[in-house]
Amino acid sequence: MPDSNFAERSEEQMSGAKVIAQALKTQDVEYMFGIVGIPVTEIAIAAQQLGIKYIGMRNEQAACYAASAIGYLTGRPGVCLVVSGPGLIHALGGMANANMNCWYAECCMSPPISMAETSAVRMAASVIRNAKQPLLIIGKGAAYAHAEENIKKLVEQYKLPFLPTPMGKGVVPDNHPNCVGAARSRALQFADVIVLFGARLNWILHFGLPPRYQPDVKFIQVDICAEELGNNVKPAVTLLGDISAVSKQLLEELDKTSWVYPPESKWWKSLREKMKSNEAASKELASKKSLPMNYYTVFYHVQEQLPTDCFVVSEGANTMDIGRTVLQNYLPRHRLDAGTFGTMGVGLGFAIAAAMVAKDRSPGQWVICVEGDSAFGFSGMEVETICRYNLPIILLVVNNNGIYQGFDMNTWKETLKFQDPTAVIPPMCLLPNSHYEQVMTAFGGKGYFVETPEELQKSLRLSLADTTKPSLINIMIEPQATRKAQDFHWLTRSNM
Amino acid sequence: MPDSNFAERSEEQMSGAKVIAQALKTQDVEYMFGIVGIPVTEIAIAAQQLGIKYIGMRNEQAACYAASAIGYLTGRPGVCLVVSGPGLIHALGGMANANMNCWYAECCMSPPISMAETSAVRMAASVIRNAKQPLLIIGKGAAYAHAEENIKKLVEQYKLPFLPTPMGKGVVPDNHPNCVGAARSRALQFADVIVLFGARLNWILHFGLPPRYQPDVKFIQVDICAEELGNNVKPAVTLLGDISAVSKQLLEELDKTSWVYPPESKWWKSLREKMKSNEAASKELASKKSLPMNYYTVFYHVQEQLPTDCFVVSEGANTMDIGRTVLQNYLPRHRLDAGTFGTMGVGLGFAIAAAMVAKDRSPGQWVICVEGDSAFGFSGMEVETICRYNLPIILLVVNNNGIYQGFDMNTWKETLKFQDPTAVIPPMCLLPNSHYEQVMTAFGGKGYFVETPEELQKSLRLSLADTTKPSLINIMIEPQATRKAQDFHWLTRSNM
Amino acid sequence: MPDSNFAERSEEQMSGAKVIAQALKTQDVEYMFGIVGIPVTEIAIAAQQLGIKYIGMRNEQAACYAASAIGYLTGRPGVCLVVSGPGLIHALGGMANANMNCWYAECCMSPPISMAETSAVRMAASVIRNAKQPLLIIGKGAAYAHAEENIKKLVEQYKLPFLPTPMGKGVVPDNHPNCVGAARSRALQFADVIVLFGARLNWILHFGLPPRYQPDVKFIQVDICAEELGNNVKPAVTLLGDISAVSKQLLEELDKTSWVYPPESKWWKSLREKMKSNEAASKELASKKSLPMNYYTVFYHVQEQLPTDCFVVSEGANTMDIGRTVLQNYLPRHRLDAGTFGTMGVGLGFAIAAAMVAKDRSPGQWVICVEGDSAFGFSGMEVETICRYNLPIILLVVNNNGIYQGFDMNTWKETLKFQDPTAVIPPMCLLPNSHYEQVMTAFGGKGYFVETPEELQKSLRLSLADTTKPSLINIMIEPQATRKAQDFHWLTRSNM
Amino acid sequence: MPDSNFAERSEEQMSGAKVIAQALKTQDVEYMFGIVGIPVTEIAIAAQQLGIKYIGMRNEQAACYAASAIGYLTGRPGVCLVVSGPGLIHALGGMANANMNCWYAECCMSPPISMAETSAVRMAASVIRNAKQPLLIIGKGAAYAHAEENIKKLVEQYKLPFLPTPMGKGVVPDNHPNCVGAARSRALQFADVIVLFGARLNWILHFGLPPRYQPDVKFIQVDICAEELGNNVKPAVTLLGDISAVSKQLLEELDKTSWVYPPESKWWKSLREKMKSNEAASKELASKKSLPMNYYTVFYHVQEQLPTDCFVVSEGANTMDIGRTVLQNYLPRHRLDAGTFGTMGVGLGFAIAAAMVAKDRSPGQWVICVEGDSAFGFSGMEVETICRYNLPIILLVVNNNGIYQGFDMNTWKETLKFQDPTAVIPPMCLLPNSHYEQVMTAFGGKGYFVETPEELQKSLRLSLADTTKPSLINIMIEPQATRKAQDFHWLTRSNM
Repeated sequence: MPDSNFAERSEEQMSGAKVIAQALKTQDVEYMFGIVGIPVTEIAIAAQQLGIKYIGMRNEQAACYAASAIGYLTGRPGVCLVVSGPGLIHALGGMANANMNCWYAECCMSPPISMAETSAVRMAASVIRNAKQPLLIIGKGAAYAHAEENIKKLVEQYKLPFLPTPMGKGVVPDNHPNCVGAARSRALQFADVIVLFGARLNWILHFGLPPRYQPDVKFIQVDICAEELGNNVKPAVTLLGDISAVSKQLLEELDKTSWVYPPESKWWKSLREKMKSNEAASKELASKKSLPMNYYTVFYHVQEQLPTDCFVVSEGANTMDIGRTVLQNYLPRHRLDAGTFGTMGVGLGFAIAAAMVAKDRSPGQWVICVEGDSAFGFSGMEVETICRYNLPIILLVVNNNGIYQGFDMNTWKETLKFQDPTAVIPPMCLLPNSHYEQVMTAFGGKGYFVETPEELQKSLRLSLADTTKPSLINIMIEPQATRKAQDFHWLTRSNM
Repeated sequence: MPDSNFAERSEEQMSGAKVIAQALKTQDVEYMFGIVGIPVTEIAIAAQQLGIKYIGMRNEQAACYAASAIGYLTGRPGVCLVVSGPGLIHALGGMANANMNCWYAECCMSPPISMAETSAVRMAASVIRNAKQPLLIIGKGAAYAHAEENIKKLVEQYKLPFLPTPMGKGVVPDNHPNCVGAARSRALQFADVIVLFGARLNWILHFGLPPRYQPDVKFIQVDICAEELGNNVKPAVTLLGDISAVSKQLLEELDKTSWVYPPESKWWKSLREKMKSNEAASKELASKKSLPMNYYTVFYHVQEQLPTDCFVVSEGANTMDIGRTVLQNYLPRHRLDAGTFGTMGVGLGFAIAAAMVAKDRSPGQWVICVEGDSAFGFSGMEVETICRYNLPIILLVVNNNGIYQGFDMNTWKETLKFQDPTAVIPPMCLLPNSHYEQVMTAFGGKGYFVETPEELQKSLRLSLADTTKPSLINIMIEPQATRKAQDFHWLTRSNM
Repeated sequence: MPDSNFAERSEEQMSGAKVIAQALKTQDVEYMFGIVGIPVTEIAIAAQQLGIKYIGMRNEQAACYAASAIGYLTGRPGVCLVVSGPGLIHALGGMANANMNCWYAECCMSPPISMAETSAVRMAASVIRNAKQPLLIIGKGAAYAHAEENIKKLVEQYKLPFLPTPMGKGVVPDNHPNCVGAARSRALQFADVIVLFGARLNWILHFGLPPRYQPDVKFIQVDICAEELGNNVKPAVTLLGDISAVSKQLLEELDKTSWVYPPESKWWKSLREKMKSNEAASKELASKKSLPMNYYTVFYHVQEQLPTDCFVVSEGANTMDIGRTVLQNYLPRHRLDAGTFGTMGVGLGFAIAAAMVAKDRSPGQWVICVEGDSAFGFSGMEVETICRYNLPIILLVVNNNGIYQGFDMNTWKETLKFQDPTAVIPPMCLLPNSHYEQVMTAFGGKGYFVETPEELQKSLRLSLADTTKPSLINIMIEPQATRKAQDFHWLTRSNM
Repeated sequence: MPDSNFAERSEEQMSGAKVIAQALKTQDVEYMFGIVGIPVTEIAIAAQQLGIKYIGMRNEQAACYAASAIGYLTGRPGVCLVVSGPGLIHALGGMANANMNCWYAECCMSPPISMAETSAVRMAASVIRNAKQPLLIIGKGAAYAHAEENIKKLVEQYKLPFLPTPMGKGVVPDNHPNCVGAARSRALQFADVIVLFGARLNWILHFGLPPRYQPDVKFIQVDICAEELGNNVKPAVTLLGDISAVSKQLLEELDKTSWVYPPESKWWKSLREKMKSNEAASKELASKKSLPMNYYTVFYHVQEQLPTDCFVVSEGANTMDIGRTVLQNYLPRHRLDAGTFGTMGVGLGFAIAAAMVAKDRSPGQWVICVEGDSAFGFSGMEVETICRYNLPIILLVVNNNGIYQGFDMNTWKETLKFQDPTAVIPPMCLLPNSHYEQVMTAFGGKGYFVETPEELQKSLRLSLADTTKPSLINIMIEPQATRKAQDFHWLTRSNM
């Protein structure tokens, strides 16, 4: 990494850089994330001269995560600019993550639209009409295909219950009366017909297998990627094609009869009861007055002030999992999280990408980035990037002093009293009461350290009110906070 | 990344973890760096129970850099513990860097010692005796082979000038009268015989080629790795074997005659003159009173207070290059820098590893980690790790508001007045006057923001005096600071 | 590779093998090709016990080529069984070849059928109706999709000229009056609208670019793989979906008007004229009486006796290229050749796979395997496999004593008179007059060495008549045989 | 693979080819093996023009095996010329094989010589002098290092028993009185000190572990590669350095006392007894008159006529294993076999390489290539290459109609009577009585089909007498031939 006297570079290098920049411009590239160095600085400059927005990041890892999110958010490729050698290697994490989320998958990105075979559509409609306990699952693929209009019609016209996957949230708003997210486990377990719109039967959906599902549940898979069809389970019907186009085919086919799923069915009743009791349980947890706060209390207060049009980015373990059940999305493609691969370190890169898109396409929208404290550590220095470009991001660090769990200050001090810290600090513990908010104030943003619901409410209000600066709210919670009791022994994940 | 109730894990998992930990212990592993997650948490715990020190890091990238440095510092493997998938990918940078620095190269790590062929040793001694303008270059390989005693004897007994490579610094102390570092370019350019002790003719040594060298310079290569012999240049003699053992063979062979290189030769005179004038030029630069400070002023003051037994870790562009010429090492294996591969982001991981070794092997030694501001951003969150384990590290962030160069605050504000920052901020600029020292105070360490020589002196004094806490000194320098004028047009790098 | 006393293997190994074999059986695997060794012998035996056909090959390379062809021929995966280490590496060639031909591509193999968007179909129909000089190109994808019925209707109902790609031959019979293969260059060069049915614009189709095409030619692409759409050229219309289903959509759309492409158009006249003159030129070449024979004479006589229902497998340089223009296919999926990747060595593996399929699905059909002499050398030992399983294969080795060209016996002897053969034998020369037919008789098959049209006719007659044994006809041709004169300088390939 | 009009290639291509050829010539490349095609034909021609010998092969697999053997035989790199894409993939097997045999390992190929540390040599000498039951094992590394002179002196001067590994055979002649190959198992099992000269403790040496070795056996490892030291076992002494130089160091050290290992020790007596009884058992097997012949009869007769200076190349399962114990080598680097990796298909490539070297360096020497019938099938077509260049190779195909074992003709016919061959032919069976010798006569060489000892003797005599042509002797043996009874249950390999 020799030094460079920038002005002295040869004409050749500059014109080579211009050719690359022009090629990217021709491909409608709008955003470039990266870290300059020899010999790529000129490319960044040339790109800026052509109107491509350049966002200089602090580590190629985060740069690549940011670039990969652009593809999902805008449907056009984002570019990650790195030097060869170490820069490229640092960027590999982002590439692998994008691949696991099907974000490089060209089969999903091409303009021509395909439809499902007519006879398969007829069969699917028939299976749906005969369902006793139907369920729609709306996945990231539906969001990516801009299928919101058609799927919402399906839900409303035929009175069907639906469940979004993490990144399928917002295709139909989370607060839609037909959303049964609050009875998730029951819905999955007792449905007899499940229609998957661009959703994979991966570990998040328990692979579609008993005991989380009925052994004879009929799956109808709607997807653009033939490879996804028939994974894990043998679907009753597969509809291969553009998810929006196929949803429309389904609408047209179902329209041919007067069938509607009866809103007073036993199934709807059972789901509504479960939703009610789960919501009551959550509310009880959320309203606990004891300090430090628990996850539910925190998310309850966040949800209360969450702007309906904001982007929500999230990563962490419990922070992401519980947050997902409480925080609501009302717009499609407005949630980004660690996803299928469970990659830690994606949050700030995603948030920066979302903020760039928000600024350009819908000024005034906030990006709310909800991070576990361990997750925040992976790319925390990108806070400088956020401040440098003054991006509309509010970072919430849900801080339990560790990975999964940590120590409170007293236990910490007791533990360190006698011995070498590398010998006695449990591997999941981080420094208690770390002032992550000062990482924000170090670069001119606003920072808040909050320990009570009132402090949380106030800091949120102030952060949302000040549109001239990014903020970080460092939210202290119970270091050993656990989830609410589960119904069944195999319920190792959220059961609402 | 499902959540985990740690207590509920099966016996099987624990005993599997114990087997792995025991195997590492058997290999004399002392240090394990990593980030826990399912299913590797148990391995970390089992390792701790067996007395292996576990250092929990904030990003696998830094964890892997730390682990790789352990091998160089202790001669035993360091271990990096990561989860599969994204964790492993994040760690790739460290693995690649270690490979480029020959740190995983087992051929360098095995105990048996080989010697050079006797006839080759005789020939090398003869070439040295006939040299008009000899030069020894001492590389990282000499440090790794613990060749300090024998090489120092060679230097002193035969009155030979020597030059260390970046990580060869300290094998013979930098302040040794025979060290011609301050006349580096001249020494390389006019030597007629150069003995390389574990040093590669890579870009740092200008590949051994004219015009930086005499076209007919004779190289004598001493190395443990046969693959390194004859790269780039055709050596006059190659001595394959353990560098310490071969140095001793050379000593014994040279001892057979009464030859000594005349200390009053023209060559010595020419080198001493150049050293004098270069040192004067540096001193002049260092003594400039204008503010913001320049690199030489900063390093001059740092050098003044640098403990003779400290570890120096460094990365950055000018920060690393200029710092290397001013900051002196007096002990072997006490300098770690971005090395051959020029990897950015290694500094904090290396510093943490060095601090662990210092604490255990020579308590009281400091690790001084000299970072460019851009370099610091790659792994800045590891400051929390430093504070958590309360490691004896002083971080110096030499801050020019950018990569290679940045904007001062006025230029910055002017630039942003009219337009979108992503369109007008040059790719090499970072936020001016970033308070990196607050990243340290956020976690309980000491932080200093310094703009004058006096503030720098004081903050250094305070930092070195307080052995109970790590510190970070954020040193503001001239954002467009450049180096001193170069003698020749091809002198694109340091010219001393 | 230690020896094995087969009977002594443990129960565990056998039951592990059974599990694997059962899993393959469940996937409807019918054929397994391979070479046994430790520890895979048991898998082959277990597979046989479950009714999977095991074909032991002589080199993993050929085994893998055979297995990959099964997928194309039957729509179900073929299996290649190899030992780990060297066996696996030998098999890589087959895997790479299959990949380049899209034979592992699961998107092509899945049962659900997708259709093109209705509006795109309408637009395509409109473009076709307005074409002045239309052309259909029928590719391997059309064969794979079993689109023969619908595409034949398109050709006949609307009187459209068509051209098959090498492996698209037979979807509509080569002797169909609308096939303009004999005017290939003219058809490509002057068409104004080209409909591609599962055909790639690769080097075989000159990448769709001038001067081989009109600069403003409109392409309509019909394909199942979105990634193929828009490669090289910007198509006027893209129809994404199952090729057979989309062809049917096109038929239905074109049916809505009474439009038919006028069979007496200038375009048809120009094509028919060119076909006539090219066929006359070929016939003249074919009827040359001079010896040794040329390619056209050979293929003319082969074509005369070629059974209409046979499989044709081919590889080589001129042998494959010229043979393709003369030898006709009348059935879909009955031609296999070296394909896009130009892999040499695939012929015998493909022929063995085709013969297995022929034996089981349409007994009595022959596989005619047309090999250049160099190509035959890659896997010639598989002749023993052919004889061992007594497969219905007739091998034609078109022998010009070399690669592209060779020496006749006199030139050879002259050349060798004075010097070391490795110094003077040109790299493309093989041993003249090699008796490849004896490689067949060595294993009990029939072999013929033919030098005249009469001998060729007779040997073909005898080979086809004896259904109890495979044959190899070694056909000597002019070693420097070249093609007929080309019309244009850029016609470096076949111009009919 | 488009056709090529060779004469029309551009000047540019030719001059590019010349540059490559010249670079290879500068590296002292003597031999190039390959298959030409576009665009590498010109490289082969340019290489020939510069005096590099070009050997055109029939499959890249064999070409690469040939090229890799050149490195071992001559100490200079051999070159394999292939087209990109499929050609390169076919060549991967050779590359992997060479790597497993350490033939690309540059650390073994560099000229500078290293020696072992003096103190380690002293310790090794002391361990040897105190041995009760010493054994030297001479490996491929000793052959590669040209250590024959020094090791022979060690054996003879100190009266030590030795054992060669497969490719270490001939460093000291196999018929040397101190060679205890005929008591291999006993020597390994009861030795108390074993000196390894460039031999790995891999599966061929049973990993150096009980019960094949004494639990407390002391290993002294002599090797050039530090990575090899300490694998599997913890050696008592390791001597890192050039094997020839270290052997000389050992000689000089042992010379310092008058010690000699007593030739009338119990150990020597025990070994001699075992050798006698094993040789008697072999001779009995060899002298069996029953037909078909067994392995020992075959090799006994081959050994009787084997020229003492020939190269022996071998591959197969029992063919290679048993042949190795009977066929003797008298010269170093004159045996090549399938080696550590057990790769099948290497034989003909190795034989062709050895023949090229023999022709050039020691005219008149034969290459005897001993192949199992299955092994021969992998590259049997290279017989045409052998005939084309008229190489001094005699191929012996030891034919048991299968892999490990096969069927005799009657069993074969019975088996096929009722059913489909792919269902009933066991996977290890090949066609019985295949006339592999006709693959040789097809190309003008001599071929023999032999079923009795007398026919074998005669055909060998004729083959060796005719130096103008290569021969292939197809030797029919008992299809179910097994080895002689083993002493212990764990003796799954040769026990002599």
